[in-house]
Amino acid sequence: MANTDLLKNIRVVLCGTAHPGNIGAAARAMKTMGITDLWLVAPQRFPDREATWRASRADDVLEQARVVATLPEALEGVAFAVACAAREREIAVPAVDARAAARRLVARARRQPVALVFGNETSGLTAAEVDECQLIGTIPANPEYSSLNLAAAVQVMTYEARLAAGAALPRRRSPVLATHEQLAAFFAHLDHTMVATGFLNPKHPKKLAARLRRLFNRAALEPEEVNILRGLLKACETPKPRRVAGPKS
Amino acid sequence: MANTDLLKNIRVVLCGTAHPGNIGAAARAMKTMGITDLWLVAPQRFPDREATWRASRADDVLEQARVVATLPEALEGVAFAVACAAREREIAVPAVDARAAARRLVARARRQPVALVFGNETSGLTAAEVDECQLIGTIPANPEYSSLNLAAAVQVMTYEARLAAGAALPRRRSPVLATHEQLAAFFAHLDHTMVATGFLNPKHPKKLAARLRRLFNRAALEPEEVNILRGLLKACETPKPRRVAGPKS
Repeated sequence: MANTDLLKNIRVVLCGTAHPGNIGAAARAMKTMGITDLWLVAPQRFPDREATWRASRADDVLEQARVVATLPEALEGVAFAVACAAREREIAVPAVDARAAARRLVARARRQPVALVFGNETSGLTAAEVDECQLIGTIPANPEYSSLNLAAAVQVMTYEARLAAGAALPRRRSPVLATHEQLAAFFAHLDHTMVATGFLNPKHPKKLAARLRRLFNRAALEPEEVNILRGLLKACETPKPRRVAGPKS
Repeated sequence: MANTDLLKNIRVVLCGTAHPGNIGAAARAMKTMGITDLWLVAPQRFPDREATWRASRADDVLEQARVVATLPEALEGVAFAVACAAREREIAVPAVDARAAARRLVARARRQPVALVFGNETSGLTAAEVDECQLIGTIPANPEYSSLNLAAAVQVMTYEARLAAGAALPRRRSPVLATHEQLAAFFAHLDHTMVATGFLNPKHPKKLAARLRRLFNRAALEPEEVNILRGLLKACETPKPRRVAGPKS
């Protein structure tokens, strides 16, 4: 795959952006790096003249942008999503710096759509949004003032992605990964099994469920592995008596 | 010299900036990377409310900024200046990419003041301005649209300078992982559950079990996660009828 085709597999997802100027500036930043697939999750104002003005000659990126209501919709078909966060979180999603995150993103983009996910200007990504991603990418910054402007963060991450795409990457075994939809169906099945077996009381907070999701997101599941796990869940919900001697029915 | 002292030796020089908003955004970009020495050569409008607004909490950088009439004044005491240009010029100043330029800049900053020099938003640096510099640094970009916003270019160059300085990266969360013994006990439990629920016929080759082990090994499990998974396995082997209304026994 040529490197420019690879960049086509990278989408930028902006969640809950408050200021349309930042959307325009982000579109410009993306286009300078050759990345043009923009998804907007519940933007507060879009389309908007301020966005178009700040996009400069990247208004084509804005015109083709897709507006959706939730992050899962924006991640349809995506095999690897990087949550771009200013700082590390106290949660079990693995975190690496922007450069390492870009390398992993680009390695995956050779085969499947991938995403860079950015949060709201003030509050950043929610824990639930981070949980939809497989990796946290942090931009190394001044610990006393780490607040990059949204478009500036998009500029740095897409710059790193462009450089990573240009660098000759060592060819690794690169399995096809489960899509966002396949993972969502597996997680729903897991939740069901946890309740059906009495492991989880549905009235209790679902911290355990969230923890397991993060664990499986870290593992970067392949479709066949999702099938194996779901087969095991099914067996757990309707266990058959073990027959040691006879053939499996 | 400590790395933070080294960053104090790096100044950012903006030549003939037209829009005060870009000056403010550049100040913010610099401060996020720990670089605070801003010089403005003949800005068209400064100070200005728009600059202060876009600087966000980097207004201290604006307040300390020095305004001068010519580039040579801004380079007083500077031993090494990088002209930040969108593309290479037809002139005899050597050009390298942003990353290489940052490394040379930082190597020099260990001993003497250095500068990153940026031109006007529309016309860039003049040939005379480039001639005041020792090196051209170009940000690799989309050849069909290489026009980074001024503050975005400042963000990328100062980001590269910070990384080159080896500034202490944010401390990574480095969780305690489950020991070999804890994992072995979990895998044995998993094997037992797979047979007990009829999912796995113990007479068949254990390819599925091996696959699941690899999956969990990839995830780098923490001890608490092992406990959660084993709790789920236990519930699967002895499922309790779901009691929706009552408390979990």
